Amino acid sequence: MRKNLLKAKFNASEPVVNGWLHIPSTVSAEAMAHQGFDSLTLDLQHGLIDYSTALPMLQVIGTTDVVPMVRVPWNEPGIIMKCLDAGAYGVICPMVNTQEECEAFVGACRYPPATHGYRSSGPTRAKLYGGDDYGDHANDEILTLAMIETAQALENIDAIMSVEGLDGVYVGPSDLGQSMGHGTGLDRQEPVMLEAINHIAATAKKHGIVAGIHTGDPKYASERLANGYNYITIGSDFGLMNAAAKQAVNAVRAGESMDLEASAY
Amino acid sequence: MRKNLLKAKFNASEPVVNGWLHIPSTVSAEAMAHQGFDSLTLDLQHGLIDYSTALPMLQVIGTTDVVPMVRVPWNEPGIIMKCLDAGAYGVICPMVNTQEECEAFVGACRYPPATHGYRSSGPTRAKLYGGDDYGDHANDEILTLAMIETAQALENIDAIMSVEGLDGVYVGPSDLGQSMGHGTGLDRQEPVMLEAINHIAATAKKHGIVAGIHTGDPKYASERLANGYNYITIGSDFGLMNAAAKQAVNAVRAGESMDLEASAY
Amino acid sequence: MRKNLLKAKFNASEPVVNGWLHIPSTVSAEAMAHQGFDSLTLDLQHGLIDYSTALPMLQVIGTTDVVPMVRVPWNEPGIIMKCLDAGAYGVICPMVNTQEECEAFVGACRYPPATHGYRSSGPTRAKLYGGDDYGDHANDEILTLAMIETAQALENIDAIMSVEGLDGVYVGPSDLGQSMGHGTGLDRQEPVMLEAINHIAATAKKHGIVAGIHTGDPKYASERLANGYNYITIGSDFGLMNAAAKQAVNAVRAGESMDLEASAY
Amino acid sequence: MRKNLLKAKFNASEPVVNGWLHIPSTVSAEAMAHQGFDSLTLDLQHGLIDYSTALPMLQVIGTTDVVPMVRVPWNEPGIIMKCLDAGAYGVICPMVNTQEECEAFVGACRYPPATHGYRSSGPTRAKLYGGDDYGDHANDEILTLAMIETAQALENIDAIMSVEGLDGVYVGPSDLGQSMGHGTGLDRQEPVMLEAINHIAATAKKHGIVAGIHTGDPKYASERLANGYNYITIGSDFGLMNAAAKQAVNAVRAGESMDLEASAY
Amino acid sequence: MRKNLLKAKFNASEPVVNGWLHIPSTVSAEAMAHQGFDSLTLDLQHGLIDYSTALPMLQVIGTTDVVPMVRVPWNEPGIIMKCLDAGAYGVICPMVNTQEECEAFVGACRYPPATHGYRSSGPTRAKLYGGDDYGDHANDEILTLAMIETAQALENIDAIMSVEGLDGVYVGPSDLGQSMGHGTGLDRQEPVMLEAINHIAATAKKHGIVAGIHTGDPKYASERLANGYNYITIGSDFGLMNAAAKQAVNAVRAGESMDLEASAY
Amino acid sequence: MRKNLLKAKFNASEPVVNGWLHIPSTVSAEAMAHQGFDSLTLDLQHGLIDYSTALPMLQVIGTTDVVPMVRVPWNEPGIIMKCLDAGAYGVICPMVNTQEECEAFVGACRYPPATHGYRSSGPTRAKLYGGDDYGDHANDEILTLAMIETAQALENIDAIMSVEGLDGVYVGPSDLGQSMGHGTGLDRQEPVMLEAINHIAATAKKHGIVAGIHTGDPKYASERLANGYNYITIGSDFGLMNAAAKQAVNAVRAGESMDLEASAY
Repeated sequence: MRKNLLKAKFNASEPVVNGWLHIPSTVSAEAMAHQGFDSLTLDLQHGLIDYSTALPMLQVIGTTDVVPMVRVPWNEPGIIMKCLDAGAYGVICPMVNTQEECEAFVGACRYPPATHGYRSSGPTRAKLYGGDDYGDHANDEILTLAMIETAQALENIDAIMSVEGLDGVYVGPSDLGQSMGHGTGLDRQEPVMLEAINHIAATAKKHGIVAGIHTGDPKYASERLANGYNYITIGSDFGLMNAAAKQAVNAVRAGESMDLEASAY
Repeated sequence: MRKNLLKAKFNASEPVVNGWLHIPSTVSAEAMAHQGFDSLTLDLQHGLIDYSTALPMLQVIGTTDVVPMVRVPWNEPGIIMKCLDAGAYGVICPMVNTQEECEAFVGACRYPPATHGYRSSGPTRAKLYGGDDYGDHANDEILTLAMIETAQALENIDAIMSVEGLDGVYVGPSDLGQSMGHGTGLDRQEPVMLEAINHIAATAKKHGIVAGIHTGDPKYASERLANGYNYITIGSDFGLMNAAAKQAVNAVRAGESMDLEASAY
Repeated sequence: MRKNLLKAKFNASEPVVNGWLHIPSTVSAEAMAHQGFDSLTLDLQHGLIDYSTALPMLQVIGTTDVVPMVRVPWNEPGIIMKCLDAGAYGVICPMVNTQEECEAFVGACRYPPATHGYRSSGPTRAKLYGGDDYGDHANDEILTLAMIETAQALENIDAIMSVEGLDGVYVGPSDLGQSMGHGTGLDRQEPVMLEAINHIAATAKKHGIVAGIHTGDPKYASERLANGYNYITIGSDFGLMNAAAKQAVNAVRAGESMDLEASAY
Repeated sequence: MRKNLLKAKFNASEPVVNGWLHIPSTVSAEAMAHQGFDSLTLDLQHGLIDYSTALPMLQVIGTTDVVPMVRVPWNEPGIIMKCLDAGAYGVICPMVNTQEECEAFVGACRYPPATHGYRSSGPTRAKLYGGDDYGDHANDEILTLAMIETAQALENIDAIMSVEGLDGVYVGPSDLGQSMGHGTGLDRQEPVMLEAINHIAATAKKHGIVAGIHTGDPKYASERLANGYNYITIGSDFGLMNAAAKQAVNAVRAGESMDLEASAY
Repeated sequence: MRKNLLKAKFNASEPVVNGWLHIPSTVSAEAMAHQGFDSLTLDLQHGLIDYSTALPMLQVIGTTDVVPMVRVPWNEPGIIMKCLDAGAYGVICPMVNTQEECEAFVGACRYPPATHGYRSSGPTRAKLYGGDDYGDHANDEILTLAMIETAQALENIDAIMSVEGLDGVYVGPSDLGQSMGHGTGLDRQEPVMLEAINHIAATAKKHGIVAGIHTGDPKYASERLANGYNYITIGSDFGLMNAAAKQAVNAVRAGESMDLEASAY
Repeated sequence: MRKNLLKAKFNASEPVVNGWLHIPSTVSAEAMAHQGFDSLTLDLQHGLIDYSTALPMLQVIGTTDVVPMVRVPWNEPGIIMKCLDAGAYGVICPMVNTQEECEAFVGACRYPPATHGYRSSGPTRAKLYGGDDYGDHANDEILTLAMIETAQALENIDAIMSVEGLDGVYVGPSDLGQSMGHGTGLDRQEPVMLEAINHIAATAKKHGIVAGIHTGDPKYASERLANGYNYITIGSDFGLMNAAAKQAVNAVRAGESMDLEASAY
């Protein structure tokens, strides 16, 4: 079975830079796979993507070595298993607030007789991508990342992280801030939030699992990598395109050059 | 009928900043329509868009005041008329090298009894966008821009620009350079090419029509606006996304901040 | 944030006329948005629409002031939140039979710290439609309508209507009739059903919330508006097209004229 | 090979009532196929349909006995042959103004060694619909209808109608009116136009071919059937839906009933 | 209402040969409907199909007498009801392990007042396929097949099979083998598994319901038909295409003929 | 730029086995790319594929080393250039009957200043697949194959094969047979046709270009490889799936095994 390159990076203590996909298009997906990310995550929750648009996007990412991931819309086994059968090599699950929710999530990603495992067998496209022996090794290669994004999840963090088969956690700063009473937004600097963010990383390290976080500015992202996180998301196809476009329009009107390399014809 | 806002800008001698769409998606199209462009051009030639994907993109641009344009794949009446019926308010036609080709192009965009006009009547969606009186005023509002992108077109420039019903020309610097023996690329600085580019603008001014050009860097774009062009394209959804993504990845790995506004979650 | 025009109408005691969309197409959706409805509801339950087809339909309705709504397929948070992030300004939820079900439904539509609120933050396209301050005001603008369509719901009507954050109820006469032992069908005239229908409106008025109902004939619809309802649905793209087409065919064969305005070319 | 039911009707001197499809959707197409039309024509010219959306529409019409037809966007062999291979049993070709154009059109629909025939062999889906012996009989079953919609075509009408393999003509009253200097619109009553319309039918009868026309009102349609036409189009999915929806909204606001049968839930 | 031809076959003790669809395409679906299967099942679980792609596939199968079925991704009422409204005439539900799960599944397929029935009324496309009286007879025609594919389901087999309204069971040998500790794979020959497989058929016979099973080789399939099964699936579009393609490539390289009939141009 | 592996095979005098794609699906395309073919050709002429469905199919073939090719619907520059910009590494053009037609075809595939070259510059997706230096080397890597499928083409064979930039010819036996008065069909055995087929190969060898042919049976294909052809197509996704499915159904009903490897679950 094709190895999950993220696992090798985690084992080698190398930082993982993840990209994010909101646009339901094979064109933006394939292009993003050429920009240097280690992995790309299709956002089926807040992105404008669902299964029917995710499938060909997962396929085209397979033209490169970039690891294809998904964030599912909710902790529901039907969509989790469909994404895995379509070739996703990792799942980020939103709103995992209790140990039981985490077990349900992880179990949907693991074939029996793994602990909690109840994934149904039928990796139709996953075998094209992963190889004919996919079924024998999928439990070892597929990444499971539970989102820590509520005050309740923070309280239950040890129970959640103890779930066998969980590979890591992923912090959603915007929901976490909202839940903790500090409103939405990325790249949190409130002391209580930074403390929580650091606490999550430290606890993950204690449990020997991955700590990931969603960020907005590369500098903040690299600070997190220096502070216990080994998996960061920077930007999205949608957000980067919008920001660059607005900057380009403003630059023309101001007669200024733009420090992005000239975008291709 | 809804007025073509570009025409008003041209009449007021205001520069028009056009954006370019390569990604066949309603999501990127609607997002680009919020970034400050005066118009957006769907590229059905070198973009990854065809009619079936262009139609909903033209629709969603209609959520804003941005003027929807198309570049058609070739000087062929079937696709030109289909794009107009779908609500495009302007057509950029590639490879218009002779007066006859220009007449065929312009005629496909004009209802009889306009000179050269042979557009067939049936503006199905165009009436939703333009209004019930679309058929009465379309000949006045729809922009026709012929691409000047070969040495042959340069030679025939006066004949091309004399075609009744032609609203302007649009320079493709990459094809023009290739045709003139200087290879491909945007933002040409070769003296002979700058001379040609200036000549096109001057000749357009003489004929009282619009001069447009495809550019890669905002500074070059604004220089063209200062040198006789009144319509410039800067960047594309695809190119801007790619450039910003590559910059973001590099910035994370280098621990640097990025001067784009933080892209949205 | 863009205001929800339905809320203004409800506050002004003006009747709301809602249209219904069964056809998964941006073309029928945009066309229906030009026929005079106050709102259009995409039916993801009994319509032939799912998320991937709903997304561009929600986008194109945004070319007009018509308020975009959805009926979700089931009381499931994943799809509810995805529709809201895609820009729906209201959700009709089927089969809300108990207070707990109503709380789960309403909570999926409300950001914390609103009561019951557990909507996750990430209004990707909703911000294009609603504005950059969407997150700050969405709890005030998004309409939540629980369907009352079983005998059990009738029994629990006060408990259901007491749920904080619920904006109104919506009667499904066909399911309600079936559940009450009177079979399916719209525009119910059975005394016991009319009594139930009137009771729902009266109870909604008591709770200060909206009362909506699905109807088949304009006359019946206007009667409901005169009897306590402030929100009615009349017809669907699918049903109206079918009925008009059958009538047109019959009229040709009978040599009769048809009192619809001549349909456009 | 499956028989073309329209041919049987023409041979039996029975009127053919054709419906028109503008909406690119399998849902509206299948529904329209249940409303009593003899045939349905997918409009790839002024409709919002192209090949990729036409294909499944042609497929679903095959759930009924309604004869699937296409109007192609232009007299271009690539799209004509693709539509036939996809199972269209007839082609309406716009803007056939000369004998040569008519020969090019008819030839694209006929396999060699038929006169003018240059259709390429490969009826991939057509064999599923028509049967394994499709290739042997297609030249006998496929209808070819040339549009007469310009003054030039009127002048050349005998030459056009003499083309071997042409099954009939189809009048586009809107383009014809525009070309004759009377503006656009259906259901023409101008004496000079009625004269032209009658002349076309009479000439078709002389040549032993079908005379078809596009109409807007059933009464006008039946008048044409009584005056030499044997093939009429009434309404379109798009136009009928729009007209019925507008009428329904107005009826609700006026408190009136509507004489369409109650449209289905 | 259109009769469910499978029911007639079951009543006549005729074997039913079912085909399986993994490819989300109307083209493969319509083609498969011409190859001699009694029914075709769209696999929304392990296939690459979801609702938006299933809908037109269900439509095109309706061009033939082949009975359209679905396997849903999970025991979730929203997707079950949507598939039925789209015209599926039977539902295979995965992972039905307890009586309660079976009741929830069957109830989603049955209109009240049938026992367990809570299907919501609104058979929008189902009426086109099944007829206007669909609502009156659907409870009698729609097939419900619960998958027996875990050791837990085997233990609860009598309770599951006792659920009123359940028409049959369907064995997933791969998941069942995995759950019983014998790994994945079709066409099981392990004595303990053959015993379980025979036991399921015998118990189904005792309860008077259908016994179905997924197989890989026609010989194994016919053996099951001889040993108590009356419903077998053989092959899938995806698997058969892949196997035949690999064999064809190998045959060319070896200079051998291939005993498939020459595939059509 | 990524090398065209077919060119290396031709230079090494190795036979090329090409597969054919009729089904417009990324799933069948990716699966076919795993079955051992050297190249896969998307058939935009007789297949059910157009540009919008071809684009993601070209993308997913890029997950393997299989060379992506297209057959275009007609000798029209718009679609030829679009396919190349989408990443096709070779074009098969139907109905090339004269030297002029061949020059028009080849020229559409070649950038200036190559002889006949008028391809427009803008390889948007082709650069993702081929590399950033695509524009510099495309003229050397892109294969141009003209179809010889009429008696007229046979007459003009030397003139056609003399066109600079033409890489080879491709025989369509069905159209060729029809044109020569022998009807349609693959794997021709008529002496006069075998003579023509051999003559084409011999003439291609004389001109130093590739000779390709469409075949139906692997044995016939290998005979052609032994008789001067170096490029053969065997089977199509559509044809192979249909043939294998029919064989499987018949085998079940007959109780026979099937010599295809058991198709995957």
